[in-house]
Amino acid sequence: MYIGIDLGGTNIAAGLVDDTGKIICKKSVPTLKDRAVEQIIGDMAKIARDVADEGGCPISRIDAVGIGCPGTVDNLSGEVVYSNNIVMDHVPMARIFQKSIDLPVNLENDANAAAYGEYITYHKGKKSFVFMTLGTGVGGGIILDGRIYRGFNGAGAEIGHITVVKDGIECTCGKRGCLEAYGSVTALIRQTREAMASHPESIMNLWEREHGHISGRTAFRCAEKGDESAVNVRDTYIGYVAEGVVSIINVLQPAAFAIGGGISREGDGLLLPIKEYVYRTDFNKFMEKTEICIAGLFGDAGIVGAAMAAVKQ
Amino acid sequence: MYIGIDLGGTNIAAGLVDDTGKIICKKSVPTLKDRAVEQIIGDMAKIARDVADEGGCPISRIDAVGIGCPGTVDNLSGEVVYSNNIVMDHVPMARIFQKSIDLPVNLENDANAAAYGEYITYHKGKKSFVFMTLGTGVGGGIILDGRIYRGFNGAGAEIGHITVVKDGIECTCGKRGCLEAYGSVTALIRQTREAMASHPESIMNLWEREHGHISGRTAFRCAEKGDESAVNVRDTYIGYVAEGVVSIINVLQPAAFAIGGGISREGDGLLLPIKEYVYRTDFNKFMEKTEICIAGLFGDAGIVGAAMAAVKQ
Repeated sequence: MYIGIDLGGTNIAAGLVDDTGKIICKKSVPTLKDRAVEQIIGDMAKIARDVADEGGCPISRIDAVGIGCPGTVDNLSGEVVYSNNIVMDHVPMARIFQKSIDLPVNLENDANAAAYGEYITYHKGKKSFVFMTLGTGVGGGIILDGRIYRGFNGAGAEIGHITVVKDGIECTCGKRGCLEAYGSVTALIRQTREAMASHPESIMNLWEREHGHISGRTAFRCAEKGDESAVNVRDTYIGYVAEGVVSIINVLQPAAFAIGGGISREGDGLLLPIKEYVYRTDFNKFMEKTEICIAGLFGDAGIVGAAMAAVKQ
Repeated sequence: MYIGIDLGGTNIAAGLVDDTGKIICKKSVPTLKDRAVEQIIGDMAKIARDVADEGGCPISRIDAVGIGCPGTVDNLSGEVVYSNNIVMDHVPMARIFQKSIDLPVNLENDANAAAYGEYITYHKGKKSFVFMTLGTGVGGGIILDGRIYRGFNGAGAEIGHITVVKDGIECTCGKRGCLEAYGSVTALIRQTREAMASHPESIMNLWEREHGHISGRTAFRCAEKGDESAVNVRDTYIGYVAEGVVSIINVLQPAAFAIGGGISREGDGLLLPIKEYVYRTDFNKFMEKTEICIAGLFGDAGIVGAAMAAVKQ
């Protein structure tokens, strides 16, 4: 049995996970990310014990603990090299965690862990797999021959930071024109706001008054009602995402490519136009095409992937 | 001993290559690409015999023959699935070749073979390696853990077909805005012509009259003389290439990234601005950086790589 911990900026989620990647029970507590990192790690250990207890599995029967953590992570040393979401600079997370629970700990970048969870659950055995999350940012992970691909320095698979618009909008990473600056939910909300400002007649403005906020869903819902500006926002947004997907497929030709994150709940409304664009424009015209699909685990991918990545390989 | 054959649209080049990847002797003949493909393959077999003879190595002592071929290639079946440069549609190249020389034959995509040659010669043992050629098109190959990365369907590593300018110039592949449409020598010549037309005072126009043609070198040479339009063409071109390099590095974080093709003879004039841009804008701010360099084998990479890829792994 394994424990998977998904450390996020808002919540710490942990789950007791069996050898096949099934969650037996799970729990989450607020991260309260501005406190000392030792306290955060202390709470991670605490809910790890809690899920083991609640799942009826004594800590002594846990094989290993996996942690998925935002930022630049050194998998070999178990150190968080740098994270700006939860501020960490050279934090030996695995070692600090082991002071509370003395078990083998495997530390992964959170997006890599989520990719691995999705792979183990839905794509196990496929030769190559790419996972892309459309959230606050655009993250992702690459699984090749059943293993997390990290690049030579552990910093690979930053698929949100390929350029789609040279000299375009500045990204959080400092470069201009990244997929993240056009394909994240943050970007979609910005695009929605811009269209609302230049089209006061759009029912997206009504939607905001009704719901009290704008979200990644605003353009999708209003487009369904036939609002022209909303259709334009939605289709342009999907176009950016599709452009990123086709670039990555041309480089990697993975057997499968799964799209996750909040926006992926749009299902076929997101998936079908992406497939249409990618299959029409990708370089590969003669061999079998990459399977493109919506991810299935949603919030649980990080827990499952962190746990499964802790399995000795 | 191995024989490597690099089948190009203009020439067929073959070399006798030892177990370490050193060319013992080499030879080339015109492809005459419009004739029957059986005749082309016949000539490939003929110069394979010639280089073996000239190198003093009887065919019986050759371990295997490697062929690097343009287009979509099925490495497993030894079939050229499709090529539009030398027109081929489902040609069982390995099998036809073996009618003339009955030896194990390994068929690779030509860019993958060149990448492998460069890897074996200069980067052997590195965990990951990307090779990019700036030529008529933008080709390349990816070597991971010492093996050619082909994707699940054999069609991977088309690094010239990542988007750099969404909805930009149409590429030969049909998609818009590919790196190839901005970073190939073909694109550089187009960019040079455009600048010459809008700046008749540019000394690039003089250069054309002196040399009787425009080439990838025109803007580089005239920029050195201080011509403003030429400086602009050169720096803009390099900017597109750098944009492609940083995108690929953000995805793969390879240990090394080599740039080859005709334009790479510009050396530091090309390399240093690319390094400056990539190291300033890449996502990885905290771990060791990818080594970026100019490729070293030039025309021989295809021969060496084809031969070495035929070594049983």
